[in-house]
Amino acid sequence: MAKNESQIEGRNAVLEAFKSGKTIDRIYVLDGCQDGPVLSIKREAKKHDTMIRYVEKERLDQMSETGHHQGVIAISAAYEYSEMEDIFNLAKEKNEPPFIILLDNIEDPHNLGAIIRTANLVGAHGVIIPKNRAVGLTPTVARTSAGAINYTPVVKVTNLSQTIEELKKQGLWFVCADMDGDLMYDLNLTGPIGLVIGNEGEGVGRLVKEKCDYVAKIPMKGDIDSLNASVAMGVMSFEIARQRLKK
Amino acid sequence: MAKNESQIEGRNAVLEAFKSGKTIDRIYVLDGCQDGPVLSIKREAKKHDTMIRYVEKERLDQMSETGHHQGVIAISAAYEYSEMEDIFNLAKEKNEPPFIILLDNIEDPHNLGAIIRTANLVGAHGVIIPKNRAVGLTPTVARTSAGAINYTPVVKVTNLSQTIEELKKQGLWFVCADMDGDLMYDLNLTGPIGLVIGNEGEGVGRLVKEKCDYVAKIPMKGDIDSLNASVAMGVMSFEIARQRLKK
Repeated sequence: MAKNESQIEGRNAVLEAFKSGKTIDRIYVLDGCQDGPVLSIKREAKKHDTMIRYVEKERLDQMSETGHHQGVIAISAAYEYSEMEDIFNLAKEKNEPPFIILLDNIEDPHNLGAIIRTANLVGAHGVIIPKNRAVGLTPTVARTSAGAINYTPVVKVTNLSQTIEELKKQGLWFVCADMDGDLMYDLNLTGPIGLVIGNEGEGVGRLVKEKCDYVAKIPMKGDIDSLNASVAMGVMSFEIARQRLKK
Repeated sequence: MAKNESQIEGRNAVLEAFKSGKTIDRIYVLDGCQDGPVLSIKREAKKHDTMIRYVEKERLDQMSETGHHQGVIAISAAYEYSEMEDIFNLAKEKNEPPFIILLDNIEDPHNLGAIIRTANLVGAHGVIIPKNRAVGLTPTVARTSAGAINYTPVVKVTNLSQTIEELKKQGLWFVCADMDGDLMYDLNLTGPIGLVIGNEGEGVGRLVKEKCDYVAKIPMKGDIDSLNASVAMGVMSFEIARQRLKK
């Protein structure tokens, strides 16, 4: 558990943090700001005995790490990573076969945030990221996740290939997204599954790909190379959701 | 056709740019400035549906590359917009029923770029954006589109509802993405179609929504509100592609 303070920026992200029960130490609010979302945040802050400090825009701009504070910055304990068993417990609670997203070195915090957001909404039970090279849970990730970071477990592992091996022993099947695979509609993706999404530039690494049971292709028509990583993850994870829904 | 975004500074230069027919994306005007030349520039801007932003002197000083902005800086469009017939010609060339993406005031350039990228790869024939409030084709959009901006026509229209009316006369059906709609798998989305994606915060506007033939829902499971706009567009447009592929 991290002891460092972390910063949550933007109205939705701060409001979601309160709603999810996160401990917010204090919030900085733009002095004189009276609109709806900000009033809701102030109400939540009072309810939770969170200190409110009214500051000038310059101060917020200076503090801001994302450049998008929208008049509100909250300081909380750093985002915590979850344990692998949190993911399996969530699946068990919902009585669903596990559905996990594994990210092979996503580097852009906007992509990681959007992926955690989508993972939450598609009904995945957790997101696994590698310790090295990849981006971690920064304020930008938190903001871009639109609050999903408070609900969907994110687990950090040392070695993704090794983690895949271990999870296979627990009955999971692994599918990675790549252009040389089978059309995703032709694969059966309804069981306990791990969906592997590759790095923005290089796709899924060779070692990780070799561990996968399926390679699935999104049908592409255009003139350019590939989808944005968070869009590819969205398209493929909702295909898994569609197949599960139909089953 | 690609062009770099360029900045035009000073009253005469900006006025000349308008008169020469250059596409100006937006202008920054010194707040409170009311003298003759500035009023002329504001008139031209309104005539051309160019966004006007009123800013402090400090902001203009900071932006200025020449040090002589005289209270006005214009940003000319990075990329040329296409005409509506370019979209229909592309569909005709490929011998496919038209498939168009309409964006109801997307504000984030990363979202617009990702959407143009996905539009290209899913096989859509063009993207339509409104003139006002929304983000235009800036360098950030171009970069985020990963080159798709050079292939997929982007058309700017004055009024999205009116454009929908006109396109209906050409045989198009319109579907918008919203949470109170029918499950997207249950709708027939195989014909000539316009997919309407709403603004990041507010979704699809009421007037635009009323013009749509279908309201389609992506099945959601999570704890938070909604998908990122570019992910929602990806998921829904690939459902259209899936239905077309199966047909």
